Amino acid sequence: MPYFDAASAAPLHPVARQALQASLDEGWADPARLYREGRRARLLLDAAREAAADAVGCRPDELVFTPSGTQAIHAGVSGALAGRRRVGRRLVVSAVEHSAVLHAAEAWEAAGGSVTEVAVDRHGAVAPDAYAAELGKATALACLQSANHEVGTEQPVREVAEACRSLGVPLLVDAAQSLAWGPVEGDWSLLTASAHKWGGPSGVGLLAVRKGVRFAPQGPADERESGRSAGFQNIPAIVAAAASLRAVRAQAAAESARLRALVDRIRARVPELVPDVEVVGDPVRRLPHVVTFSCLYVDGETLLHELDRAGFSVSSGSSCTSSTLIPSHVLRAMGVLSEGNVRVSLAPFDTSEEDVDRFLGVLPGLVAGVRERFGAPASVSASRPESSASPEPSEASESLVLDTLGRRCPIPVIELAKVIGEVPVGRTVTVLSDDEAARLDIPAWCGMRGQEYVGERGAEAGVAYVVRRLR
Amino acid sequence: MPYFDAASAAPLHPVARQALQASLDEGWADPARLYREGRRARLLLDAAREAAADAVGCRPDELVFTPSGTQAIHAGVSGALAGRRRVGRRLVVSAVEHSAVLHAAEAWEAAGGSVTEVAVDRHGAVAPDAYAAELGKATALACLQSANHEVGTEQPVREVAEACRSLGVPLLVDAAQSLAWGPVEGDWSLLTASAHKWGGPSGVGLLAVRKGVRFAPQGPADERESGRSAGFQNIPAIVAAAASLRAVRAQAAAESARLRALVDRIRARVPELVPDVEVVGDPVRRLPHVVTFSCLYVDGETLLHELDRAGFSVSSGSSCTSSTLIPSHVLRAMGVLSEGNVRVSLAPFDTSEEDVDRFLGVLPGLVAGVRERFGAPASVSASRPESSASPEPSEASESLVLDTLGRRCPIPVIELAKVIGEVPVGRTVTVLSDDEAARLDIPAWCGMRGQEYVGERGAEAGVAYVVRRLR
Repeated sequence: MPYFDAASAAPLHPVARQALQASLDEGWADPARLYREGRRARLLLDAAREAAADAVGCRPDELVFTPSGTQAIHAGVSGALAGRRRVGRRLVVSAVEHSAVLHAAEAWEAAGGSVTEVAVDRHGAVAPDAYAAELGKATALACLQSANHEVGTEQPVREVAEACRSLGVPLLVDAAQSLAWGPVEGDWSLLTASAHKWGGPSGVGLLAVRKGVRFAPQGPADERESGRSAGFQNIPAIVAAAASLRAVRAQAAAESARLRALVDRIRARVPELVPDVEVVGDPVRRLPHVVTFSCLYVDGETLLHELDRAGFSVSSGSSCTSSTLIPSHVLRAMGVLSEGNVRVSLAPFDTSEEDVDRFLGVLPGLVAGVRERFGAPASVSASRPESSASPEPSEASESLVLDTLGRRCPIPVIELAKVIGEVPVGRTVTVLSDDEAARLDIPAWCGMRGQEYVGERGAEAGVAYVVRRLR
Repeated sequence: MPYFDAASAAPLHPVARQALQASLDEGWADPARLYREGRRARLLLDAAREAAADAVGCRPDELVFTPSGTQAIHAGVSGALAGRRRVGRRLVVSAVEHSAVLHAAEAWEAAGGSVTEVAVDRHGAVAPDAYAAELGKATALACLQSANHEVGTEQPVREVAEACRSLGVPLLVDAAQSLAWGPVEGDWSLLTASAHKWGGPSGVGLLAVRKGVRFAPQGPADERESGRSAGFQNIPAIVAAAASLRAVRAQAAAESARLRALVDRIRARVPELVPDVEVVGDPVRRLPHVVTFSCLYVDGETLLHELDRAGFSVSSGSSCTSSTLIPSHVLRAMGVLSEGNVRVSLAPFDTSEEDVDRFLGVLPGLVAGVRERFGAPASVSASRPESSASPEPSEASESLVLDTLGRRCPIPVIELAKVIGEVPVGRTVTVLSDDEAARLDIPAWCGMRGQEYVGERGAEAGVAYVVRRLR
């Protein structure tokens, strides 16, 4: 049963399991105590810190363990901002950071700080120059992920770090998705990561703060982990995290090449096998194991259920899979199709070529089934031009109005596709929708179908999206 | 090798180990995901929440898991205070709460709130009336531990909870030390605990917030655990925590009686075997497994090392065992001797009668050895009256001055004991000391030796402690 959601959480690596079990007997005591059980726990903790620091590329005294990657980010962002509060109150982040970074930014804004989001291109990457342009004098901290968790695109961390360094702004790199594959290059100031992303156990995050970076931990004081992460350390899990990081790194080059080839296969074959698909994210500068695509006229949640029934565990950035009914902020920032979104993140040391072939075998039928169930336009094809035998334009139909209020993704886009044939070439159709996904998916549909997206305007209820038929 | 520091961290209970190992395969995925691995993880998490809530005595939807007891306290205190910020900004705590509560109180004070500490008696307990008297109209939250972590004294939680309820003030109970033995009685509003105190794994705390209690989680938003604890849940550890809590509860009555008898033996025998010892904490209303005593003229750190060499792992509230060189705030609040302090907390399901007998066998010799090394007055005895052949009082020696500046505990008290014989009965000796422990230990010495502690006054360097010889 192939598990294709390693970017959420990877199954426990055998080395992690072994190290966890071995350290349950030695690592349960308080490492701050002076008696033998405490000394043993301290030895394990120190050794794990050295191993993790070595993998991160920092000094052991620059690295602390936190209870999760999320908490590493929260502590890193708040501590760095507080440490530089005299410099300024501006936080710069990319628009496609993990929600833990964006939530930390919201908290900062709520406390009176300001936040600048740097836009990304259609592949999901920031431009170093654009990022650097936002680093004004009053910038206390900049954040940039090493690679995107939803679409796999690598960010130009080295270049952004250089720009930050030259302006004296510390850069925090969220390396959650990439640390398994290698250290983060470039002159970063703070780095965060999460062990369960690399096959380590749950319950362990990393926060590295380079010497010389001003840092003022927030929240109640606590003497553990240099005052940067409150609470009793989970040493068996920390030992397992460090041991498994070392293990995955030892095999990273070979495993990365193997998974990269499998992802290349998915990237190439999915658009051939499934009509009206957009594969998103950078095809080259990307994580080895992540590929994301969106299927026009498809309900993401239904497709996920069908894939689950067929034995494939994937995730989605579609609005229908989110409790807020808003498409993923990453897809929105990239301006790409969000409906029928599927993220496949292959599990290192687990996913086989056969798993991928099986996936490619079942996907077309499942997508077709979902489309049929939702009444999507039949026999859609990415390259087939619209019929030229369209009605003549008439004064009365200057803009056809399509009311999809109350209908959720993918219905508004399906209805649009159904009526476009009735719109005279050169004339417009106005789609009324109160579904947040429409804002992303109607323009994306226009791009994929060769029609013109004119724009949106307010309406009595919902939003009016105007589309001009070009062909 | 007897481990006598279960109040810090208990060794992993066999049920915890078994549950942890069994759930590593099922509990690693994201419980928020809809695919099978996620559903399995969610089932485990839900079952653990039900079991833990049952043991706590609350509804499952009132309980969240946190990464530690410390974080449960920090989140509980900050969330409850913020939820009632319109009522007032006063936080009431007992003077002997765990440092996690006191640090949360300091953070609250730093943010502009006010904190009232309720004093304790010589056994370390608050008086319900005194506690209730501090609950004014502007009180947002009150905190009281179920039992003290250093001396084992149980607090009158039921009575204080009643007072809080009648005044509409929510009470947060830190139940870290007592939850293994039974649910907290009384009508509390919030409750916190820590799994590694009951033989569960590290990395799991509990925070229960009763329905109807106003609560506004602080820090960056996070969708997990009802928004009350940020970060990916450590489900295998949570499963192990819940399973082991259920297991220890099933044996709590028998094990509690067994350990209570062993502690009674220590409480009775130590003062018989070791001269000049003060056993502290309530002899009856106490945890079954904790006993604490202090030894006059003894350096706590040296005694801990000697006990460790003899195979006994204990902890201490003496100043010399703290990085700040300040005696434990609990001993200070109780006003009892802090030098040579030893906390013995027996390990449930582990400590045997023979362990205790061996401890009682080696302790007298080790204490005597430390006293000898530090030049303590020879052949001290708690009941031996001072020699009556003391020098006659003279005008010139109105107050002998003993300069112990720069000397650390237990030296100032040892020096005092050495010179007291030279002080005429009825006259005073002034001890100059810059050691924080002297503030506690000089009055305590006076109490134990039948001399009068007159008081302290400022001095050019350090503090001048005035003692009158009575006999």
